[in-house]
Order: sequence, then structure tokens, then C-alpha cells
Amino acid sequence: MKKYAVEFIGTFFLVFTVGMCVLDPGAGNLAPLAIGSVLAIMIFSGGHVSGAHYNPAVTTAVTVRGRAAISDLAGYWGAQVIAGAIAAFLVLWFKGSPAGELLVLEMPKALAAEFLFTFALANTVINVATAKGTSGNSFYGLAIGFTVLAGAYAVGGVSGGAFNPAVTVGLVIMGKLTAAQMGAYIAVQLLAGAAAGTLYKVINPDDR
Amino acid sequence: MKKYAVEFIGTFFLVFTVGMCVLDPGAGNLAPLAIGSVLAIMIFSGGHVSGAHYNPAVTTAVTVRGRAAISDLAGYWGAQVIAGAIAAFLVLWFKGSPAGELLVLEMPKALAAEFLFTFALANTVINVATAKGTSGNSFYGLAIGFTVLAGAYAVGGVSGGAFNPAVTVGLVIMGKLTAAQMGAYIAVQLLAGAAAGTLYKVINPDDR
Amino acid sequence: MKKYAVEFIGTFFLVFTVGMCVLDPGAGNLAPLAIGSVLAIMIFSGGHVSGAHYNPAVTTAVTVRGRAAISDLAGYWGAQVIAGAIAAFLVLWFKGSPAGELLVLEMPKALAAEFLFTFALANTVINVATAKGTSGNSFYGLAIGFTVLAGAYAVGGVSGGAFNPAVTVGLVIMGKLTAAQMGAYIAVQLLAGAAAGTLYKVINPDDR
Amino acid sequence: MKKYAVEFIGTFFLVFTVGMCVLDPGAGNLAPLAIGSVLAIMIFSGGHVSGAHYNPAVTTAVTVRGRAAISDLAGYWGAQVIAGAIAAFLVLWFKGSPAGELLVLEMPKALAAEFLFTFALANTVINVATAKGTSGNSFYGLAIGFTVLAGAYAVGGVSGGAFNPAVTVGLVIMGKLTAAQMGAYIAVQLLAGAAAGTLYKVINPDDR
Repeated sequence: MKKYAVEFIGTFFLVFTVGMCVLDPGAGNLAPLAIGSVLAIMIFSGGHVSGAHYNPAVTTAVTVRGRAAISDLAGYWGAQVIAGAIAAFLVLWFKGSPAGELLVLEMPKALAAEFLFTFALANTVINVATAKGTSGNSFYGLAIGFTVLAGAYAVGGVSGGAFNPAVTVGLVIMGKLTAAQMGAYIAVQLLAGAAAGTLYKVINPDDR
Repeated sequence: MKKYAVEFIGTFFLVFTVGMCVLDPGAGNLAPLAIGSVLAIMIFSGGHVSGAHYNPAVTTAVTVRGRAAISDLAGYWGAQVIAGAIAAFLVLWFKGSPAGELLVLEMPKALAAEFLFTFALANTVINVATAKGTSGNSFYGLAIGFTVLAGAYAVGGVSGGAFNPAVTVGLVIMGKLTAAQMGAYIAVQLLAGAAAGTLYKVINPDDR
Repeated sequence: MKKYAVEFIGTFFLVFTVGMCVLDPGAGNLAPLAIGSVLAIMIFSGGHVSGAHYNPAVTTAVTVRGRAAISDLAGYWGAQVIAGAIAAFLVLWFKGSPAGELLVLEMPKALAAEFLFTFALANTVINVATAKGTSGNSFYGLAIGFTVLAGAYAVGGVSGGAFNPAVTVGLVIMGKLTAAQMGAYIAVQLLAGAAAGTLYKVINPDDR
Repeated sequence: MKKYAVEFIGTFFLVFTVGMCVLDPGAGNLAPLAIGSVLAIMIFSGGHVSGAHYNPAVTTAVTVRGRAAISDLAGYWGAQVIAGAIAAFLVLWFKGSPAGELLVLEMPKALAAEFLFTFALANTVINVATAKGTSGNSFYGLAIGFTVLAGAYAVGGVSGGAFNPAVTVGLVIMGKLTAAQMGAYIAVQLLAGAAAGTLYKVINPDDR
């Protein structure tokens, strides 16, 4: 249970910060710095308890890589998505408006962008938080958080820069994505997580 | 006494940087980066002497969590608030004006915002600077400082982004908050600190 | 082979982020933050497998310094340049345009700028990732990535801020540099890498 | 001699980045991020060889604190100031203009600002790079570099944000300060360094 509590707290602050910084009046072109930072600090805070995934695609990746129990999958996903939804509703209250404006998307590009940086994010998590070669490091939170920072600057204008099904659910509630887009986003994000987990095992067969 | 001296120095530079960056002409939309950075570096500098709270809400949180002596509470709070006040007066001298303009606040939202990120801040401090699971890390200052960075971008426009009674006192002196608002702010901030300390003990009963 | 795979992934995301942030509509004056961050996180992710060069000039420097095998040089360079080229073509697809606009360059200044910061970059890599005096540190990725951040702000307007033959190839494909400029850029970058490797050996004769 | 070479390289890149980012066309409101970053990375690169002062005021502070030899003082100061001067002339060549525009200063405020953040900078250096309580950390470069970042945002508009006699000399060459202002700046900066060194010894009498 305490793992799920930590996943809830971390994902809540991640999605809350995303919403407060992205919906008008937000943080403008510094939103990615804020979002990457809040993810970094929540990982530094909660990693020692839950692993600090805060993202169903990351939980998928870590499970495929063999460092999270399949029996925990539902609990993690549940805590993350519920936290994302609550954070999104709270953002709407703060912003005092029913919802933001839908992102204008070209779906093939948006899905490609989500795949690429969700893969990069999951790849970073696996390598900095579960690999033998980096054990004991003090950079894991910064590395993971700033992957989202980089991705948000690189493809935020293409896809909104979610890279995370819990964030995706939040974006739907906040009016930035449609429910139909959400399904495709989440499928691609989970696929990217699974791909990163699989790749790690192929490249590093000796690190179980 | 040397603990109080370090708390004085760290809080002084924190509130001084807040004021210089927030009052016109300030650092614009990069003020949160400056403020998060000055907090980070003062924590890296002073943590080994005083624990580097620089914030009565953090001292409250760490006391509740059981890693600061109740007998030190008054000394810490005093050093922090006096440092904040002196820094604020110095900012007014530098800016050459009697005071800034009052923030336009919706109090329920402002207090909710202060609660949320003061909680996040105290939660980060407890987890990165007092938890068994993160002992010996090299990220504590960055994690704590960048919590304020993220909070300032997320809710700075809602509450001013104080998250700290010493900063709150400084904002009153600098003309950004009224004395009446100050009371509510400080109550909510101390409550958030106590909540984070309590939560940690509930979630981690085995880490005393 | 797994080293080359990691070099491919890291260089791909570096050049992809460069292109997405630099070609319109990009990340504006925050492009260097995004680029420095993506390099940092890819180094934290891949350093334990391949050394995380992602840059033929860095591979040259590390080879001269004696910490990479000459027999690996072709494989590293090949993986890096191919990754850069593929990333650049992908950027063109995302941006939906044949190419960006050529940089306006004064070649002597551009080459001097490329020399200076490619030297700084290679010097950082050698000192934080191969020196006895910094072994076991947790800052190597951040130090290397933020060298590019600083260089991009300092001389990005002079040379485009490549500091890396794989990025240079990408910039040609994306229409920012001509093929003729590319040759001079790459020569200067490799020379700067070799200079940094040589300097390290001269200054630290006892660290082999 | 190798210490002086490292001090030369680090100070050169620091002052070069200051000049390129501050003189038009520079890095705008992101100049402090670039400058803080270049200082951080040069410290991570060179700290293991020379201690990475890159600043006569820091050398003064570390000497007062007892961790640098008085016999090295002249060599360090010389390398730093010569590097700053060369970097400044190189900036003028890159910018293609005889010099920048003089800063508009109110001297009492400018000197107070220089004292405050040079003190903060020297205090950070002593605590993160020479204190028993932080030995073996991986954050020293970031902490020192980001002190300058914070100071540049806080008081850059008041004093130019030099905090360093080598930078001050560079600013004179680049036309931002007069020679008369330089003398006062350097005196205040050295005084601030000595104050930080003295304070450390008073507060921590048991850490020699």
C-alpha cells in the first residue's frame, strides 16, 4: 500500500504541474523546465519507496525488464491514473475554466513523437534506476526528469509531450486531447515502454 | 549558535533573491530558476552544519518527523524570520522604492496552492535529507531547490509561490502581501509541513 | 555490437532534439537547454555500456587519451554519423519541409567557435569520465551535456553550435550548413578532440 | 604549472562565455544559465587538478580558510587574470566591435551587490569543496556554478554580476566597466572572499 501512496503523490504533482504550466495562463516556454523538474524531484523523493514510476509506460518497461512484480502492475497503474485524473480536475478548479483548447495534432506525427520520447524516457529509467552498471548513482531523478524536459521542447508542439498514460488521461480531462486520441496515445506509450524493456534485455543479457 | 548562523545566511540569500527577482525590474519568467537555484546551493553549502531548512515549515516538518530537536525550534524559526525580514528591507533599498504592488489573490486558491507545494517541499526535504533509503546521496540540495522552482512555475501566479513563512514575511515587507494574508499563509504552510512529517511516519513506520 | 547500438540511440536522440528545437517552429532561446539536457540524459543512460560518446570528436579525444580502442573507432564513428543522418531525415519529416535556412556564417569565426567549444566538450569528457581524480562521480552526464548548453548560448549565433561531426552531418541534411562548410567543420572538430586528448596526457602524465 | 594551466583554461572559458552571452547579440535573459553552467562544468573538469577556483576572490577565500598555499596565490591570480583578459579580447574579435556599452551603475548598490554574491560564491566553494562535512560529494561544480546563476539573476541588473576579479578585468576590456570602477569592484570582491574564509573558520573551528 505504501508504494501505491507514493505513486499517487508523485503522479499527482506531475500532472498537476503539467496542467498548471500548460493551460493558460501557464509557464510559457518554461513549462518543460517546470515539468522536468517536478518529475525529477518526485523521483528523488519517492524512488526509495516505490521505484518512482509515476507513469504506466514506465511501470510496463520496468516490469518487462524484470524489476517490478507483475502482481503490482494493476496497483501501480491504478494509483497513477487516479492521481492524474484528480490532479487534472484540480487544475480546472484552479484555472476557473471548464477546459483548455484541444491541441491541433497530425496524428501520425503525434504518435511517432509519443513513441520516440516515451521510449527514451523508459530507456533512461531502466538504465539509471535498474542497471547494474549505474547502481548507487545520485543522478537518477535528474536524468529521468530531464528526459521529459528535452522531449517536451523537442516534440511538445507536435504531440503535447505527454509520454505517459497518466498525463494523457489528465490532458483529456483538461480538454487538450479527445478520448479517441487518448486510446491511440496510451497504446503507443505502453508499446514504447515495453520496447525499451525488451531492448535492454537484448543488449544486456548478463544484467538480470 | 553556529546552526542559527547558517540558517540566517541561507534564508537571507533565499529571500533576498526572491525579492530581487520578483520586484520590478526582476528576472521575469526566469525568477523561479534563480530562486530554486539559490535554495539548492544554500542547502548544499549549509546542510552539513544546520540541516539547511531556511524555512519554518521545513523545520516543523523535520521536527515532526523526529530529526530536529523541539528545543531548536524557536532558534531556527527566529533566525529564519529575522533573516527574511532583513533581506526584504535590503531589497527595498536596492530597488529604491517603498514597496512592490500587492499580489491579486483569490484566497481559497492561494491557500490551496501554498498548502500543496509547501507539502511537496517538506515531503522532498524529509525524503532526500532524512530518509534511510536515500542516505549519502548527492542530490538533496537540487531536489529541494527545484521543488520550489517547479512550484513557482505551477502556482506562482496563483499565490506568489512563497511556500515558506520566512519568505511570506519578506513578501509582506516588500509590499506583495498584506499582514492579514500573511497569517493565513503561515498557518497553512506550517500545517503543510506538519502534514508531510506525519505522512512520512505513517508510510515509513520502520524508519525512525 | 551493443556498444554501437547504444551510440546509435544516444546520437539519434541528440541530433533529433537539435533538429526539432532549432528548425522553425523550434524551442526558441531554450533550445540549448533542451539539447544540453538530452545529451546529459543519454550519457547517464548509456555511459555504462559504450562510454556514451555520441560524437566522433569525443571518440577521437578518448582514443588519443588512451581509453578507447583504435579498433572501435570506425564502428563508433559509423554508428554516430548514421544515427545523425537518420535523425535529420526524421526531423525533416516532422517539420514537413524540405529543409531549414542556411546559417549565415563568417567562416573564420565559425571555425574558431567550433574549435573552442569542441575542445571544451572533449576536455570535459576526458576529465569527468576517464580521469582517476573524478572516478565514481555522479555528475559526468550533467557536466558533459551542460558544456554543450553553455557553448550553444555562447557561440550558437556564430557557428550554429554543432561541436560534433554527427550533428554537423545532421545540420547539412537539414539545410543549415553546406557540404563545403561541413568538411571544414568536421576537420576542426576532430582536431579539437585530438588536442584535448593530447593536452590531458601532457598535463596528467601520471594518469594513464 | 599544471594547476595554473587548468586555472587558465577554466577562467578563459568562463570569461569568454560571459562576454559572448552579455555583449549584443548575446543570450538575453538566459545568459546567467549559460554562465552558471560553464562555471559548473569547468569546475567538474578541473577541480581534481587545481581546485578549480577560476576567480581570485575564491583563491583568496580558500587561502584564508587554509586549503590553498600562500605560495600559490600569485600564480593562481596571474593565470586567472591573464585568462580573463585574453578571453575578453577574443570576445571583441568575435563580436566585431571595439567594445560594449558601459553599464549604468549606482556604485554603492553595485558594490553591495558584488560583496553579497561574491561572499555567497566563496561561502559555497568553501563549504562544498573544502569542508569535512561534504567530502566526496558529486554536487560541488553545480553548487558553485549555480551560485553565479542565482546572483546574476538577482543583481545582474545592479552590478553586472561579476563576483570575480578576472571577470571584472574582462568587463573593463569589453567596455562594460571603467578602470576606476574596476578597482573598487576588485577590492570588494577580495574582501568578500576573505570574509567568507574567515567566517568558515569561526563557525567551524574543528574543521581545519
